[in-house]
Parts: sequence; structure tokens; C-alpha cells
Amino acid sequence: MSTWRDTLTIETMDKERANPPFDVRALSISMHGTERDLQLKEKFMIELARDPIYSTKGWHDMSKDEIRERTMQKIASLVHYVMNETVDVFTKRMELIGMHDPGFWTRFGVHYGLFLGAIRGSATANQFSYWMEKGVISCQGMYGCFGMTELAHGSNVAGLETTATFDEKTDQFVVHTPNLGATKWWIGGAAQSATHCSVFAQLIVNGKKYGTKTFIVPLRDPKTYQLLPGINIGDIGKKMGRDGIDNGFIQFTNVRIPRAYMLMKHTQVTREGEVREPPLQQLTYGALLQGRTAMVADAANTSKKALTIAVRYAAVRRQFKSTPEATLETQILDYPIHQRRLMPLLAQATAFGFTALEMTRLFEETSTALEALEPGDPNLEKTIEMLKETHATSAGLKAFCTWGTLEAIDKCRQACGGHGYSSYNGFPSMYADFAVHCTWEGDNTILALQSGRALISSFLDAKTKGKKFSSATSYMNDIDTVLAAKCNGEKDLDSLEGIEAGWGTVAAHAVKKAAEDYEKLINAGKNRDEAFEACSQVRFVAASVHSSGYIFRQFKQAVERLPADAKDGVRVNLEIVAKLYGLWQMEEKAAFFLRSGWLSPQQLDLVQARVSDACAAVRKFAIPLIDAFAISDHIINSPIGVKSGDIYREYFGAVRRANPQNKEHPYFERVIKPFLFRSPPEMEDFDDMGVDDDIEEIREELEEAEKERAEAAKANAAKKATVE
Amino acid sequence: MSTWRDTLTIETMDKERANPPFDVRALSISMHGTERDLQLKEKFMIELARDPIYSTKGWHDMSKDEIRERTMQKIASLVHYVMNETVDVFTKRMELIGMHDPGFWTRFGVHYGLFLGAIRGSATANQFSYWMEKGVISCQGMYGCFGMTELAHGSNVAGLETTATFDEKTDQFVVHTPNLGATKWWIGGAAQSATHCSVFAQLIVNGKKYGTKTFIVPLRDPKTYQLLPGINIGDIGKKMGRDGIDNGFIQFTNVRIPRAYMLMKHTQVTREGEVREPPLQQLTYGALLQGRTAMVADAANTSKKALTIAVRYAAVRRQFKSTPEATLETQILDYPIHQRRLMPLLAQATAFGFTALEMTRLFEETSTALEALEPGDPNLEKTIEMLKETHATSAGLKAFCTWGTLEAIDKCRQACGGHGYSSYNGFPSMYADFAVHCTWEGDNTILALQSGRALISSFLDAKTKGKKFSSATSYMNDIDTVLAAKCNGEKDLDSLEGIEAGWGTVAAHAVKKAAEDYEKLINAGKNRDEAFEACSQVRFVAASVHSSGYIFRQFKQAVERLPADAKDGVRVNLEIVAKLYGLWQMEEKAAFFLRSGWLSPQQLDLVQARVSDACAAVRKFAIPLIDAFAISDHIINSPIGVKSGDIYREYFGAVRRANPQNKEHPYFERVIKPFLFRSPPEMEDFDDMGVDDDIEEIREELEEAEKERAEAAKANAAKKATVE
Repeated sequence: MSTWRDTLTIETMDKERANPPFDVRALSISMHGTERDLQLKEKFMIELARDPIYSTKGWHDMSKDEIRERTMQKIASLVHYVMNETVDVFTKRMELIGMHDPGFWTRFGVHYGLFLGAIRGSATANQFSYWMEKGVISCQGMYGCFGMTELAHGSNVAGLETTATFDEKTDQFVVHTPNLGATKWWIGGAAQSATHCSVFAQLIVNGKKYGTKTFIVPLRDPKTYQLLPGINIGDIGKKMGRDGIDNGFIQFTNVRIPRAYMLMKHTQVTREGEVREPPLQQLTYGALLQGRTAMVADAANTSKKALTIAVRYAAVRRQFKSTPEATLETQILDYPIHQRRLMPLLAQATAFGFTALEMTRLFEETSTALEALEPGDPNLEKTIEMLKETHATSAGLKAFCTWGTLEAIDKCRQACGGHGYSSYNGFPSMYADFAVHCTWEGDNTILALQSGRALISSFLDAKTKGKKFSSATSYMNDIDTVLAAKCNGEKDLDSLEGIEAGWGTVAAHAVKKAAEDYEKLINAGKNRDEAFEACSQVRFVAASVHSSGYIFRQFKQAVERLPADAKDGVRVNLEIVAKLYGLWQMEEKAAFFLRSGWLSPQQLDLVQARVSDACAAVRKFAIPLIDAFAISDHIINSPIGVKSGDIYREYFGAVRRANPQNKEHPYFERVIKPFLFRSPPEMEDFDDMGVDDDIEEIREELEEAEKERAEAAKANAAKKATVE
Repeated sequence: MSTWRDTLTIETMDKERANPPFDVRALSISMHGTERDLQLKEKFMIELARDPIYSTKGWHDMSKDEIRERTMQKIASLVHYVMNETVDVFTKRMELIGMHDPGFWTRFGVHYGLFLGAIRGSATANQFSYWMEKGVISCQGMYGCFGMTELAHGSNVAGLETTATFDEKTDQFVVHTPNLGATKWWIGGAAQSATHCSVFAQLIVNGKKYGTKTFIVPLRDPKTYQLLPGINIGDIGKKMGRDGIDNGFIQFTNVRIPRAYMLMKHTQVTREGEVREPPLQQLTYGALLQGRTAMVADAANTSKKALTIAVRYAAVRRQFKSTPEATLETQILDYPIHQRRLMPLLAQATAFGFTALEMTRLFEETSTALEALEPGDPNLEKTIEMLKETHATSAGLKAFCTWGTLEAIDKCRQACGGHGYSSYNGFPSMYADFAVHCTWEGDNTILALQSGRALISSFLDAKTKGKKFSSATSYMNDIDTVLAAKCNGEKDLDSLEGIEAGWGTVAAHAVKKAAEDYEKLINAGKNRDEAFEACSQVRFVAASVHSSGYIFRQFKQAVERLPADAKDGVRVNLEIVAKLYGLWQMEEKAAFFLRSGWLSPQQLDLVQARVSDACAAVRKFAIPLIDAFAISDHIINSPIGVKSGDIYREYFGAVRRANPQNKEHPYFERVIKPFLFRSPPEMEDFDDMGVDDDIEEIREELEEAEKERAEAAKANAAKKATVE
């Protein structure tokens, strides 16, 4: 029986690390973009681990109130870096913080990303200077929140109902909440942090409505944090996750602000109440891009974190002997079904990582082009084209990468069995924190449909205007050949090019089907919006298939960028992981491959067999691959996922530290003792009393019972008092 | 703009209920089995709603400690019913309680299901009387927990390492935890509730090991709840969900118990240390069946609860106008894509409900047969056959119904957008509580594989022995015809029989593929276990496809049991829902339908179009269908899911009640004020100081900075002290 020993898991983990088939550091660098990026991350991890504010002690047992206060302390400590680091370095730091504490990441992002972003994007130069001087950059005397969503309106920003009515007499706007549904809702930072809010409200001048504009509204006196007149704020309280961010609601009752507090880079209201509207609608895409890019990166990072825990656990957890004579039980990672559960997700996490690098590059390229744009610029059209494409790409990736990661987190939890259910092993909060990515800053379903809409438009442009596309949708360039392509058997399934060709064909078919359904609806007399609505399911499918192919291509290109002649073993092994991703996704979406004719039914069996083989191949170097993700134990924050493999001692220790043994039982005297030693329930037999019973006896019994009942009621009342 | 009004959602909901195409009560009765079952449920719902112990006030903001104490109060209140209700009535009550408070359900079930179940299943008649007299049934002076899993062993019960060594001198067993991994772990009720534990330990007599047996070990003095000598118990603390159950760990240090505390219905140890082992291994299937049956029912109930919230919200939530002229925005349930998100899940919840009724019937039938069994019974073989089939069915259903429900809960959450993320709307705790169903009492993947293994065996029995099967696997009876069958176009897709035939064919192909792979492995020289292991992926697929078909068939049969000539509209409309389930699952698993040849690629398009049509059809009566689920607002416990449709006022009220507005900011003085009004960070500019600066000025500046730094350090230390 007892072959178990404390050090067995460590020895097992050491063995998993012996003789990796590639240079782990070299792989790690390729996953992080550059060596400098990896070094920066390592530096940040050390800094976080040694700062007591970022300690994980007591992490899972803190109350919402404790978490919120701690989060504010973290913000105070982080402003130091905002002021002293370049934007790209600080962005990397924030990426790591997102992995460490998503609630903190959000609360910090509300001021620096959303509030400051609103001012940057919509204020005139003078207005921007004004808020700079007020202290917006350094949080001196002010902290902002972002007042967009309302109780009854989320996705439909144009339908928001808060009003901002110009009062020419006083040169002020009157901000008002006209009904319950117009209550600003989910406003991060409103409950406890913010002095100011960038409020989205319907501009009304001289009785005329001009649509949704942005107004800066002071909420609290920064010296006391008392609410200003006309402001009603409440705490939205407990959420699924991210308790560190204090979401609140805001109701305005005829709150007056100076005219200059409307951000007027685009629409302007003069002293005389003249409204000057911009010739072109502002380019709002840019602001959305940053958030989505960050979420794609966060999806990749969180996937890697979840996989690190589940794969390390599976490597050292042993269960069942393969034969009665075996000395040791089998590592669960050696079971084919367990490889099937985790290795595809490991490949997906790696794929998401390379996709995030590309998405970040695209975002930076697009931002640079946008910033360089001047009035009458000859590059205008080209830049807008680029912006639209980047926007569509980011929408699809945000949706499918966050969905994929959320699913991966729970699959990893389940792969750790019961231990995955313990808060101390990290999955519960990881899932709860991550889950919001699927619905905020563009609901995933709506974003996926946007991506599908862009694909239909591209398809029709290619068809009717002969338009040519760059890599993301290059399968549309020679569409007839691509549509007719078929898998040439094993050869295609064994090469990155072959797999890529399959994804091109299946995406082309899915987009074609969506475009044809759309055209049929248009020909039947529907308008564009109606037609897009009515074909939403096929549009969704097109986006889904396109995104898988896009992500696979990022992985393939990352492999191809590696030197073919290097002796570090990175390229050849990473290629195995890339193939696993491409083939596994092919299996997951096999119906579309069969429908398109690219795969024959018999070839599907080949795909399935290859996925199993690739799982077994990746399993061999799963631990060195995980090591290349380079996430410190402090960030992993899961005893069953520690690098050393010493999972049981770490886990036992963590549980004990978090739950000190009390001498006194918390409610034995109050609840348990009266329950276990209650008198037997004599009242229950009344129905069984026959008419033959002595009438005097019954009377006595009833009196006795009445007395007991009164006492029980008294005790019960006392009990209830303690409950409420 | 402002077409919003407080009563709009109520009016909208009323309209959804006007003129349902069926008799809602009649549908509800068919969903609950009998009218009596529905009435019982309604009675229980009223009783729960009026008992202050079951109040939902403060539900989402209680700490783990508060929840645990409240849960113990609920247990104390429930024993009344255990003692006064018949088993079948009480089982129904427990089913409802599982929907109301899963943590409480678990904690109660640990004593009554697991601990008492262990005694019932493994004690001799004398032993059973002994524990009865001790108070086990009424919880008088004792409360039990179930000590099976250990830190290092879960699934592999035979590998447990706790030892129970017979000491003949004293006629006692010595129970001992030999190493850290053998610590009893996850033991529900151990931390704060239990006086006794049914411990699974390796029986050792005279140095010989006899495998895992069950021993009753006293843990605490019931009069004081102090731990007994040799017992070390700790609290396992925070979990993903079900905080009401106090999971703990237990370590035994040479704990002595009387020999009679070993449960000896099967294996016996005599006074002289003779071990009598039973001729046949005990039938342990029975005990597992009850838990799994309950979980299938819980999956159905929880699916219905989640769908009730999401569909009601979608019916009254409005977003975007269909045309600029429209008076009102569109109900989100009217968007085709939203119908696609929710209607299939609604059909699935209904399907799970009928499946649970059948599973319960099967369980009762099997239990009755088992109990009636006598030594040498001629029915033995037939009963064991039935038990094996029920066991395989329950394994597959437990796995796929709990997976399906867990996924449905999160999809419903996402369908409610941001509001789904609020704890007060119920999804966060529903997901967290439900998630454990996928890993406990048989990990889902392992159960699915067991089901697949049974299917392979049946297939081979049919092939080699010509064995015939009853309904669940009847597609194996005429396998060649079934394998060769093809969809006869629209006709088959429009009838329940046609859809059923498709599921038969696809299941037959999946099982055949798994069986053939298995046989190939056997022929290649693998033993049975190795062969099953190596073909686990195809085995899993077989179980998955088989289960979908099984669930569809339960739905179909429920429809067919309804009178065809009734004028209540139930049958015809329920048939639409059944088709949606069958066709949607066909679309979800389309690759297997294409692979099997039952569907041609072009027919897949027909299936997809029909799913969209069926979604639109079910949407029309979605609210009356939900009403037939008959779950009270108290049990739903979600303001955006209230029956009246008054979601915004209910939600706003719930949030305010749970988060009273404080006069004082909790940490403004401590954290925010020092942050917003800190002195500017003068230390940062040192690098920029040129050599030209006056040397005296620099000295003064440095001294000043040093002073500030010291003060900051002091403040920081104070801050840290408050954090830790």
C-alpha cells in the first residue's frame, strides 16, 4: 500500500524537467516577443512578490470590504510607476497585474483607461490642459469613473436616457436622471473611489436633442468624500468576481455643471446655445481597440495560468496502478483521456499567446497611423481601412479568446478533481473574475456578429469589386480555387501549410454561406439591418470558423519566424503544438469541414487519430512547455500548481494557515447542543390518539404540550434574533 | 427618447402570458409526473417561503461563518420532516431544497444519505439496531460524516491508505493515518458538525491486508464538541460554492475503537482475528445509484431555474429599436440570435426534466427488485442485469446532464449581460454551487467512460452472442439495418420518429467504432484494461452520442404518453420543444451524423434551418412554458427573474436593501485622503540634476527628501499593519 512519501511529487516533477527536447529559455523568449519583454516581466514578478501590499496571504478569505480597501492601497502604490515608466513598459506591468489581481486591474483601469481615455479622446486641447492641472494624470485631488451604462441600457449607447440640458441663462448644463431605468449602473469606482464621472448623457439645447455626448460631473467633495448636492450614489455590492472594484449606481437630480465641462472636441455648444456638430462622426473605434487588445492578452495569460496549475497537478498526481505489480500508481497525465482533456487546451493557450502578440502589434500600428493622421491626409482612406480591419479582427478575437479561456479555466478546474473546487487552488476566483470578459466592453455574441458582418462585407467586396485582402482574409482573394480545394490526405494533415489550407477553405465556405443568405434576404426586400439580423446564426458561424483559422495562422507564422537551422529544438517542437491546435480545432468544428467537402468522412478519422497522437507527443514535454510560460509561484497563487511539484505539503499548509483551529466551536452552544439534545417531539402523535383514550389524560397532555410549545417558541425567537 | 416607464416590463410580461397555446397547468402536471407531485412541490414552496430560517434576506452578503451557522439551523428545523414524512414525500422535499440551498442539501445529505447510507448498506442487523438506539435516525446526540476521500486518493478507493489494524489483545481496531497523503480530506461535516465518521480504511489483521472496509469512528464528545484523543480535525475553509457545508480534514493517530464498530454485513472479523470474506463482492452499485439519480434531478431543476431567469429577463428587456419610428425598443427575446442562445437550452431543460422522471422510475424499480432479492433467488441474474444497465445509464446521465446544466447556467448568465454578473441575480452562486456535481461522486469523465465501456460490452454481446436489448440500447438489436439507415429528407427531420432513427444510427456508428478500436487493441495483445484505456476517446464519444439520443428518447416518450385527442394543446406544443432538442443536439454533434452517413452535407443545412425555425416557434410560448416549470419567486431568488416581470424595481430594491448607504466612508481617512493629497514625488528627478546646480542647494534638497522619505516609510509601515 504505502508507497506514498512526501518527496515523491518533487522527484516526479524533477524527472519531468530532465532533458527537455528544447531550450526552455529560448522558447520562453519566443513566446514573450523579445528577451527584453521576458526580462521586464520577470522584474515585475519579483517586485510584486516582495511588496507586502501584493501579498497573497489571506487572499481567499478576505471579505469584500477588506478586498476593496486593500485594492485602494494597491492603486496608491501603483501611481508611482505610472509617473515613472514609459507607456509600453507600464502596459506590460498592467498586463501582469491583470493576471495577479483582476479586480485591481479593473479599478485602476477605470480611472486611467476609461475616465482619462474619455478626456483624451473627447476634450479640446484647452479642456485637456485644465484637467491635467486639476491632477487627473497623477490622481492628485481627483479620481475618475466612467458613467456610460444605465440600468435599462447597456449595448445601445444611443438609447441612454440621462439628460444634459443647456441652461443659457446660467451658462450651465443640467444633468438629470429622468427615470429609474436611466440610473447609471455598474459604474466602477462610483461606490467608494471617484470624485468625478465622465457621464454619457443626451445633449438637449433649446428643446432639441443632439444625441449622446460626454460631460464631466463632480460627484464628491475630494476633501471629505461627501456626495455633492443632487448626487445620489449607492453601492452595487456583491458580484460574481472582481470584488476589488467598487461598482455603484448614480442618480442625478438636476445637477448643474459649467458649460465647459462638456467635452467639446467633436460637438460644441457655444455660450449662445449654438450647437456645432462635426462634419464627420468621430472615430470612436480607437478607444475600444485598446480594451479589446488588453482582453485578448489577458485571455492568453489567464489560459496559461490555468494550464500551469492543471498540467503540473496532473504530472505529479498519481491514481490507480497500471498493473497490480507496479510499485507506483500512474501519473494521471499519462492517461490518454487526461491528455485529451489538457493538451489541446495547452496548445490553445500557446496559440492565444502568439495571437495576443500579433493583436498588440496591430493595435500599435493602427494607433500610430491614426495619431499621424492630419486633416486632408492622403492616407486617410487607407488608415480608415486599416482601422476597420483591425476593429473587426479585435472584435472576433475578444469574443472567441475570452470564451475559449473561460471554458478552459473550468476544464482545468475539473481536471484537478475535488482539489480544483478549493478556493485555495485558485480556479474559483479565476473563473469568477474572468467571466465578466464575455459580457463587458461589447457582449461577445454582439462582437462575434460584428466580425461576421465585416466578413460578409469583405466577401461581397471581393465578389463584386474584385477587392483583394491582406493575410487575415486572404482566402477570399482566389475564392473559387479555395472553395473547391480538398484535403490531399495525410500529407495535408501533417503539415502546417496543409492545415492552413483547410482552414481557408472552411472559412471561405462559411462566409460564402452567410453572404448568400444575406443577399437572399436583401433580394427578398429586407433592408440591410433586417437582413443581417435574420442571418445572424450563419454570420456567427462564419465568425467562429474564421477566428479559429486566424488564431491557427498566428501560431503557424510564429513557428515560421523561428530560425529553421537553430539547434535549440524550439521550432520543431513548437510545430507539434501548433499542429495539435489546428487539428484539434478541426475536430471540434468538424461538421463545417465535412460540410465544405474539404474533409471526407474517412479523413475525419485520420484527424481524430492525429489529435490523439499529438496529445501524446505534447504530453512528453508538457512541463518544460509550461515552464516556458514563465509565471512565478506568486502569480500562480495555487499550491497544487507550485513549480517544485511539492503540491500536498503546500496545499495542506495553505489550508491550515487560512483556517486556524479554534479552541471554541463557533455555534455549538447556540445551535448544535439544543438540536442534538432536544426533547423528543411529543406533539407529533396527536393523529394517532384514539377516542378510547382517557379524556383527563389528554387534557393534561395538551397542557404539557402547550407549555413546551411556548418555551420552544421563545427559544426559537431568540434563535431568530441571532440569525437576523 | 423616454418611452421607458416603471410598468412597461409588467405590461410586457402580461402580454407574453395572454392566450397561451396550451393549458399551462396541464403541461405543468405532465412535467412533474402526477398532479399530486406538483401539489406537493407547491406545498413545500409555500412552507419554505414562510419559514424565516429559509428567508433569502441577506443571502448573497453572508460570510462563510454566518452561512454555516444558518445551515445548521436549517438542519435542526428539517429533522421534524424526516421523522414525519414518508420517504417518497421527503425525497421530493429534499429535491426542492437542493434547488433552494445546495450547501444545505449537501450537509443534510452527508448525514442522512452517506453516513446513514453506509450503516444501512454495510452494518449487520444488530449493528444497525445499535446505531438506531444511539440516535442516528433522529440526530439525537449524534451527527455523522462520511470519511472516504483522502488528500492523495479520490477516485481510487481501493488505494486509500488510512489503516485499521486489529488488536486481538484488546479486541479493538487501531485507526491510523500513516502519512500526509492519507489525511481524510474534503470530509463534509467534519469541520463543525459531526460526532462520528464512517471511515474507509485498509483492514489489517495479523499483518495481512484485506482491502478497504468501513469503520465507525467517534470524533467528538457530543456534550462539548471537543475532539477525542488521537483525532486531529481542521477546517478546509473556502470553496468555490456550497459554503454551508463544513468540509474538513481528519488525521487519526492510533485511535482505538471497539471491534464491533467495523461494519460487518459483508466482511467479518471474529474475536479471534479470523477474517470471513463474503463469497461475492458486495453490490455497491445500489448506494451510488441514489446519489446519481438525485443529481440528474438536480441538473434538470437547476437548468429550469437558470432558464426561468434568463428567459423572463429576455422577454421584458428591450434594447435597440427595429426602426427609428418604433415607439418601443425590441424585446431581446425577439432577436433571432437571442432565441438561438436560449431556446435550445430551454428545450434541454425540459428534456432533462423528463429524463429525471425516467431515471427516478428506473432507480425505484431497481431498488425494489434488489430489496426483494433473496438468497438463491431465480431472479438474481435478471436483477443483476437490470442493476448493471441502470448503473451504466445513471453514470452517463449524471455526467452529461450535469455538464449540460453547468454550461447552461453560464450561458444564461451571459444572456443577461452585465446584470447576470451581479450576485443578487443568482447566477454566480448557482454556477459555483452546481460546479461540484461534475467532479464528485464519480468524476464525470470517468463516469462517461464507464458508460462507454458498458456500451462496448453490449455491442460485443449483441454481435457475438446475439443478445437483445431493451429500449435504451435497442438500436443494437438490428444493427446492420440501423447502421445502413439514412435520413429520408425533410420527412424524417419533421417527425419525432425520424429524429429518433437518426440518433439510433449515429449512436450505433459511434459504439461500433469504439468496439472495433477496442477489439483491434485486444487482437494486438493488450489486456482488457489497457485496451479500454487506449480507446478512451472513442469510448467517450460513444457515451456522449448515446446519452443525447437517450435523453431525446425520454422526451419523445413523454410526448407520446400524452393523450393525442386532448384539447389542451399540450401534446402538439411539447412536440415542437422535443423536436428542437433533438435537432439542436443533432446540429451540435453534426460531425458524427455526417460521418455516419445518416445526414448528407446538404441535409445538414436543412437541420440548421429547422433549428432556427423551431427556436422561433418555441419563443412564441416561452413564457407559458417557463411558468409550467412552476418555480416560486422565493426559490428563483433573482429579481431579474421575477414572475411579475417587474425586474428593474425588484433589482434596484434588492441591491439597495443589501447595501445600505453609509454616512461614513469606510477607508477615506485611512487610504484615500493620504493618497489624493500626498506631496508630489520630488525624489524622482534626481537623474535629471545637472552638475551645474548649486552644491549647497542639492544638499538641502537631499536632507529634505530624506526627511520625507522617513515619514513616508513610517506611514507605510502603519498602512501595512492595518493590512495584515
